[in-house]
Amino acid sequence: MTTARPQEAAEPKVAYLGPRGTFSEEIALGFYREVEGSFTPYATIDAVIRAVASGEAAEGIVPVENSLDGSVNITLDTLAHEVDLRIFKEMVLPIRHNLLTRADTKHINVILSHPQALAQCRSYLRENYPGAELVAVESTAAAAYQVASGAKNHAAIGSLRAAGLYSLAVIAADIQDNPHNSTRFIVLVRDGKIASEAARKTSLICQINGEKPGSLHDILGEFARRQVNLTKIESRPARTGLGQYIFFLDAEGSLEDGNVRASVEAVREKSLWFKSLGSYPVCMVKSQDE
Amino acid sequence: MTTARPQEAAEPKVAYLGPRGTFSEEIALGFYREVEGSFTPYATIDAVIRAVASGEAAEGIVPVENSLDGSVNITLDTLAHEVDLRIFKEMVLPIRHNLLTRADTKHINVILSHPQALAQCRSYLRENYPGAELVAVESTAAAAYQVASGAKNHAAIGSLRAAGLYSLAVIAADIQDNPHNSTRFIVLVRDGKIASEAARKTSLICQINGEKPGSLHDILGEFARRQVNLTKIESRPARTGLGQYIFFLDAEGSLEDGNVRASVEAVREKSLWFKSLGSYPVCMVKSQDE
Repeated sequence: MTTARPQEAAEPKVAYLGPRGTFSEEIALGFYREVEGSFTPYATIDAVIRAVASGEAAEGIVPVENSLDGSVNITLDTLAHEVDLRIFKEMVLPIRHNLLTRADTKHINVILSHPQALAQCRSYLRENYPGAELVAVESTAAAAYQVASGAKNHAAIGSLRAAGLYSLAVIAADIQDNPHNSTRFIVLVRDGKIASEAARKTSLICQINGEKPGSLHDILGEFARRQVNLTKIESRPARTGLGQYIFFLDAEGSLEDGNVRASVEAVREKSLWFKSLGSYPVCMVKSQDE
Repeated sequence: MTTARPQEAAEPKVAYLGPRGTFSEEIALGFYREVEGSFTPYATIDAVIRAVASGEAAEGIVPVENSLDGSVNITLDTLAHEVDLRIFKEMVLPIRHNLLTRADTKHINVILSHPQALAQCRSYLRENYPGAELVAVESTAAAAYQVASGAKNHAAIGSLRAAGLYSLAVIAADIQDNPHNSTRFIVLVRDGKIASEAARKTSLICQINGEKPGSLHDILGEFARRQVNLTKIESRPARTGLGQYIFFLDAEGSLEDGNVRASVEAVREKSLWFKSLGSYPVCMVKSQDE
């Protein structure tokens, strides 16, 4: 799975949502050769993105969407409102959640995890631990770390890798509510660096005139009439008042394709505000849990 | 602001996201005459919605969208996937956040609030408390309650009403990142009960064939060609795999209007799956903080 780079090329500094044992780290391990100091875990998604924007890191790996819980809003909002970065690559990882405790745990009354992991195991938790307090922490791995070093009646939802890293017992495996659980991660970069694989997807953000009936219909028509398929459309607040939105659009194909480029250019011209996140390849990642 | 009901009519059992001091309670207080036992706080949004679905409560008040942080996913997902309820009324409340501590607090190293409140004060917190640990809890009022009864170096983000209820000091007022901060709440009901005011908005949920280019464009065209304005379009995972979505659409106007009804009927026919949340009035609420 590792795409080995020429020996002489310096490894890029890769920022990811830490601590060790997160799904973001799994992505990093699958795609980069880890050399001393080349991987840097950050405590929040926000911090990973800012590290790339400031030049502290050359590449940053963050989750952008889960198949059950939807978009990771902090990723979308930071890309839209606070930095100018490009997507270098998208990677899709199947997600499996497990309930982890210390070996000496008999009774669980507090369960920690990332808010999206808690959400993805909502039915399991309601059935099996209806009285437990659910505590949101920054990542699944942070939850595992806190359980390993914390109270005996606490449990974490996390990966088998996190269980191994923090020496926790796996009380229940595959506890996610839905088998169709996978997460899209994106690798963010600053400059015009080109991925070695062919770009298959193009992302953009735009704000249109929401007061005018049919504005969004008109924008989508630019893609439909050129037979360009949109794989995603997501609205997020423009932050200028209720009812005012920006739209994140993912289109199949690369800006190298004339139809995609023409659609995107037409949207740019019709938008009040527009930002391109570029074209990039998409890879499926095999989970290290398997 | 209170719409007094006839003396003889029994007050409905109203479920809201508690504990006392939440914005949901502010909405309840603004619109219902509180009589002994008529208001019931629930610990989670999920629990409020289920209380209405099961008949435990006649009406349930939950937040559905904030102007900065976007949709409240648990509200949308529960309405789509787990219950069959209708929107009786929408209420829009301006939101002001404040930093609250015990009177004897000198130093703050942990800040608790609802995840959306933490998100809405992200810039303020990064500038003023970059080292503080941010802890997500179920509501702004739960955060205030925990600070009042907890450690001295903790602070909560909450309303002035919560400060008053839990005897906390207001360290900083109006700390939200953006002045355009308001939240839409919806009142959910089971049956075909009709609001006394005129319905101004119609909501529906549909799943369309995402594999076919232009499917969403086609759906939006049903509204555009009849000059019906969409005030919101939101995609959420269909939970059947990455790239498969359901859409929440809010249209201006009532199903009593022929154009709205015809648009909605056309969408119903073109959808793989469809759910109507009905037509309802929209009210602006003056914050009790003012």
